[in-house]
Amino acid sequence: MENKKTGAQTFVLCNPPSISGHANVVGEKEGQGPLKNSFDVISIDDTFGERSWEKAEVEMQKQALTMALTKAKQTPSILDFLFAGDLLNQCISAGYAARNTGIPFFGLYGACSTMGESLSLAALLLDGGFGEWGAAVTSSHFCSAERQYRAPLEYGGQRTPTSQWTATAAGAVVLAKNGEGPYVTHVTPGCIRDKGIKDANNMGAAMAWAAYDTISQHLKDTNRSTSYYDLIITGDLGKLGMEIVIDLFAEDGIDITPNYTDCGVLLFDLKEQDVHCGASGCGCSASVLTGYLLNGMRAGQWNNILFCTTGALHSPTALGQGESIPGICHAVAISTCK
Amino acid sequence: MENKKTGAQTFVLCNPPSISGHANVVGEKEGQGPLKNSFDVISIDDTFGERSWEKAEVEMQKQALTMALTKAKQTPSILDFLFAGDLLNQCISAGYAARNTGIPFFGLYGACSTMGESLSLAALLLDGGFGEWGAAVTSSHFCSAERQYRAPLEYGGQRTPTSQWTATAAGAVVLAKNGEGPYVTHVTPGCIRDKGIKDANNMGAAMAWAAYDTISQHLKDTNRSTSYYDLIITGDLGKLGMEIVIDLFAEDGIDITPNYTDCGVLLFDLKEQDVHCGASGCGCSASVLTGYLLNGMRAGQWNNILFCTTGALHSPTALGQGESIPGICHAVAISTCK
Repeated sequence: MENKKTGAQTFVLCNPPSISGHANVVGEKEGQGPLKNSFDVISIDDTFGERSWEKAEVEMQKQALTMALTKAKQTPSILDFLFAGDLLNQCISAGYAARNTGIPFFGLYGACSTMGESLSLAALLLDGGFGEWGAAVTSSHFCSAERQYRAPLEYGGQRTPTSQWTATAAGAVVLAKNGEGPYVTHVTPGCIRDKGIKDANNMGAAMAWAAYDTISQHLKDTNRSTSYYDLIITGDLGKLGMEIVIDLFAEDGIDITPNYTDCGVLLFDLKEQDVHCGASGCGCSASVLTGYLLNGMRAGQWNNILFCTTGALHSPTALGQGESIPGICHAVAISTCK
Repeated sequence: MENKKTGAQTFVLCNPPSISGHANVVGEKEGQGPLKNSFDVISIDDTFGERSWEKAEVEMQKQALTMALTKAKQTPSILDFLFAGDLLNQCISAGYAARNTGIPFFGLYGACSTMGESLSLAALLLDGGFGEWGAAVTSSHFCSAERQYRAPLEYGGQRTPTSQWTATAAGAVVLAKNGEGPYVTHVTPGCIRDKGIKDANNMGAAMAWAAYDTISQHLKDTNRSTSYYDLIITGDLGKLGMEIVIDLFAEDGIDITPNYTDCGVLLFDLKEQDVHCGASGCGCSASVLTGYLLNGMRAGQWNNILFCTTGALHSPTALGQGESIPGICHAVAISTCK
């Protein structure tokens, strides 16, 4: 079989899988933001009827996948595999959501890059000839993330200017081996880059170099310029991380600004919603992809996007032991044409 | 492209990747067990020269991958991708070990099933035509796992009869698109099965049904009987979990005992090493695969094995909220012939 690798890091999908269904579920704050019209479910109850925030996240993943399957006119039994993950210890949102569903399950941990990682692997397996249908699901929840990574909400801790707000959101994509567009055409998996940032309230900076690395490598591998894409969008770098990416490209003589943005900057109104540098969390890029971006592609707003999810691969234990924050970015090219 | 799925759950690899290199690193206790001659490195220092057990695990993953690459006569730059994971929150062993290596990285969380999951995905990508070289690495450490999942070791908590001992071990496999055997020929990814077990000191029972499900499905999909395999080996069910699997097959009229065993039963001397039901942890199946099993296949002891890693997808938070323990099992068929 032909080696489909174009360069050092990018895989070309010769039989691009179709994004057949996509859906999202968000919390009340996300539903008050600028993208409110792109969400399938906005819950005014952040517990989603459950008795804990962790169980709420399980419910969010279930609802997102069920709706994405419904939009693809399919049921869970059609799925040959599911790639899923989240931010919680032992990825319990993903594991409990998939429990007893009878869907072959691959659990991932890519921090906030998980939507890109899961979408990449699901698309690669389908393109590789393994199965007919696959799905990718991920989530985050402000309340479960805060108490796990920082402090219980009840402490009312002050947030620093560079901090981001973990999105309460889940997104699901259902992919088909055969079907109509949009299609996943290229995957550039990221390498882990650590620039020595140690502040868990400045994750945009920790992830920005990884985003620059992966986007640059993708453009080099595909021999494309930034202008090839109608939109290049990072996962959750937020305002500061986005500025660093713009600066890094500027050092290469490239003005990436005309068609570059970030899911973490789009999800909330940065001036009105008190989220400092923007949104973060697996659910941030997942909900922006499965609403604003894919709806926009279907409506003809964009034909080619480069969806670049970013993750910070630290833990409270690692930072407590003096470690810095490694970042990663997985890029997925999505096109309305094969 | 032809759909390679044979049945409900099994993928046949038409161009089976070669297991080109494999290596492991274990702690002192593992090095005193029955498999001591199959390990590449036995460290008498469980900190591996580092200042914390978490950092020790990072070092173990690095050493295992470096040795596996050396055995494959390759360097890290050859790798098109790395699949890795571990038991620690946010999978920090895998993330920090791969930091700044320049290897495209996919982080996984499959609890103790991670060796099977990572091996599966690396093999599927290579068979699908994506790249020439891939690797799968995983680890666990008794000390880091105990303090994260149960209690700090200093408490000296009493262990229950059904408990298992998390292996201090890391294993790495380097796969090549082309090369000599052993080969990965089939992958049966598992579904998550929860039978309601709530005792984190009885994980063998929690995972046994998942193992039975996946092995049964694999045999059905491939139209093979248990005797087709020279060895069917589960990941870390331990003594009790293994007995449950034997009973479940017996209910189907199948005597699986002649060629069935479990990595968790093999790694330690259950009578002499005070490990109760046996070993567990990602590093258990990883170190048994990369030593005893693959060395044995190369020496002609077995030609066909079914390597079935098992994982318990719970967390202390989930159990604290009254949840039960979901189990998963991924099966990988390895053969000396294509």
